[in-house]
Amino acid sequence: MLSPKFSELVRALRCLPSVGAKTAQRMALQLIERDRQGAELIVSTLTAALSDIGRCERCQALSETPVCPICADEQRDHAQLCIVESLTDWLAIEQSGAFQGYYFLLSGRLSPLDGIGPREIGVDRLMVRLDDPAIEEVILATSATIEGEATASYLQSMMAGSRYRVSRLAQGVPMGGELEYLDGHTLALALRSRRPITDD
Amino acid sequence: MLSPKFSELVRALRCLPSVGAKTAQRMALQLIERDRQGAELIVSTLTAALSDIGRCERCQALSETPVCPICADEQRDHAQLCIVESLTDWLAIEQSGAFQGYYFLLSGRLSPLDGIGPREIGVDRLMVRLDDPAIEEVILATSATIEGEATASYLQSMMAGSRYRVSRLAQGVPMGGELEYLDGHTLALALRSRRPITDD
Ligand SMILES: [Zn+2]
Ligand SMILES: [Zn+2]
Repeated sequence: MLSPKFSELVRALRCLPSVGAKTAQRMALQLIERDRQGAELIVSTLTAALSDIGRCERCQALSETPVCPICADEQRDHAQLCIVESLTDWLAIEQSGAFQGYYFLLSGRLSPLDGIGPREIGVDRLMVRLDDPAIEEVILATSATIEGEATASYLQSMMAGSRYRVSRLAQGVPMGGELEYLDGHTLALALRSRRPITDD
Repeated sequence: MLSPKFSELVRALRCLPSVGAKTAQRMALQLIERDRQGAELIVSTLTAALSDIGRCERCQALSETPVCPICADEQRDHAQLCIVESLTDWLAIEQSGAFQGYYFLLSGRLSPLDGIGPREIGVDRLMVRLDDPAIEEVILATSATIEGEATASYLQSMMAGSRYRVSRLAQGVPMGGELEYLDGHTLALALRSRRPITDD
């Protein structure tokens, strides 16, 4: 009914998470009718991000350089490596300000019933990263969901007998909770009171 | 913390209505990490919309042609002109399927305290449109808000003594209600039972 190009824009905006038909229409109207400057900014930043952002070869986080700014930062604590299952969890921990070591990002969590095993979540790349002799502690920061716990258990058994300590985020993360929805304070507390889980 | 280009994308996405920092971050992750095809689609459709969509010279709705598809449709009812205050209201009425005439889109509603008078909402262009001898009825479909009612009153007095009937959407639109949030059925009812308001 409106112009076909407007309808195509509305359809495209539904690619955004939690955006239905009504919201997409409001967004399109905002961009085309009231904020063309904002629309131009979205086009230019999204184009640049798509062409230039790949994966950090060291931690697998998004990066526009071969090694991301955090992995390239020599001032961080080389003794600690924090393993997360998603970029949102990675961001949540980093934004809590409570962790100064390095990260490794898995591509999700184990889910055998869906055919998602160690290879699919990038455990082989993690093994390479764990060769770093500077590592003294590995923090398993997968989520407190059933699959997150199973992933942590798997990694824990894989690292059994290794030279570094293995720990897990402390209670404080509510059961079934996704890390990304926690406030930074709770997350910082859970990180500070993390418990060792290496076999004793 | 993440790549600078990712942060710029997150900032740009906050131009979207009701999108805060957290939501913008989730959207950016979705586009860059999980749905690059969707991201490309947003770039291409938004670019096309920005370059090709302007205003219909007849009704002021968004259009990629000088005259929009509705104004160009000779099968509609030339006797009826429906005046709305926003494109969302325009879309809500059109999507209700209850109106077969033509539209005129005001650029908002009168708000003297904010310096928004008849000129600012495009009443001069409306006057030109009203010269059309085919018009037999003008439907004032501004919202049931104080400013929407004031705008309807102003237009009604402006059209006093004209050759066409002037009507207003029937009760059924809740007081203080914005048309765009009404379901199509309520809107269709209100349109069918519209009441004449020409001075008698
Ligand atoms: Zn990295
Ligand atoms: Zn038109």
